[in-house]
Amino acid sequence: MQLTHFTDLGLRVLMYLSHPERDTPVTISEVAERFEASRNHLVKVVHFMAQQGWLVTTRGKGGGLALALPVDQYRLGHTIRVLENVTEMIDCADPPCALRGRCHLKSILDQAMEAFFKELDRYTLADAVASPTHQVITMLHKLRPVA
Amino acid sequence: MQLTHFTDLGLRVLMYLSHPERDTPVTISEVAERFEASRNHLVKVVHFMAQQGWLVTTRGKGGGLALALPVDQYRLGHTIRVLENVTEMIDCADPPCALRGRCHLKSILDQAMEAFFKELDRYTLADAVASPTHQVITMLHKLRPVA
Repeated sequence: MQLTHFTDLGLRVLMYLSHPERDTPVTISEVAERFEASRNHLVKVVHFMAQQGWLVTTRGKGGGLALALPVDQYRLGHTIRVLENVTEMIDCADPPCALRGRCHLKSILDQAMEAFFKELDRYTLADAVASPTHQVITMLHKLRPVA
Repeated sequence: MQLTHFTDLGLRVLMYLSHPERDTPVTISEVAERFEASRNHLVKVVHFMAQQGWLVTTRGKGGGLALALPVDQYRLGHTIRVLENVTEMIDCADPPCALRGRCHLKSILDQAMEAFFKELDRYTLADAVASPTHQVITMLHKLRPVA
């Protein structure tokens, strides 16, 4: 029940962009280097998050990525639910389960998944980057610029 | 954040074996046919569950599978946690995350995972196979025997 790599990358991008004290743009190449992530995967994640209205992206020279909202507006349960894009904990359809449609386990798992997201919704991106995480992110931003 | 195929199969086996009114043994081939599952995968899952003391397996002609405990002794949170064999929702080590060791997100995710299992631990296998699930399982047991 690990989160997907897509979600993992999305969260790392949001956390990295939560750092406000900077006047040069953050690029995808920079995030890729800082987190040793594939640039191609990051392009997809960033595109998806921009579509959600979570990121502002500016093209061309001097362009880059920024959060579209204040950090306390990214509720973690909602954010992870959207990034995961999964509505069920098990796939009852493949292979088709003989108990499908009349299975209590399915509703118990649905309930537990709601408990998971409810717990996450107690927190926002602001909590995820609180000290000492904030200091590490600040330090990463101060590394040499990516060419 | 879907459960693994291994866990899914394990749960289907436990649910199928929860049916007590039967005097012929349940074989792996039978479970494989009823759930359209790979026999090889099932052998691994059954072996693992026997090691946990959850199943009794008898070899040879007339041998088969049975639950080792009463159905209300299989707490779902514990059962799924053991089948999943995952202790973390994200892999901070691969690729190594620059925030590793000082990341609040990690502890928030751990907390949400605990909420997930706590909710599941409110239920046992007995709840998962309560009516109408029980009737479907009964019907599956009455299908023609597997050669």
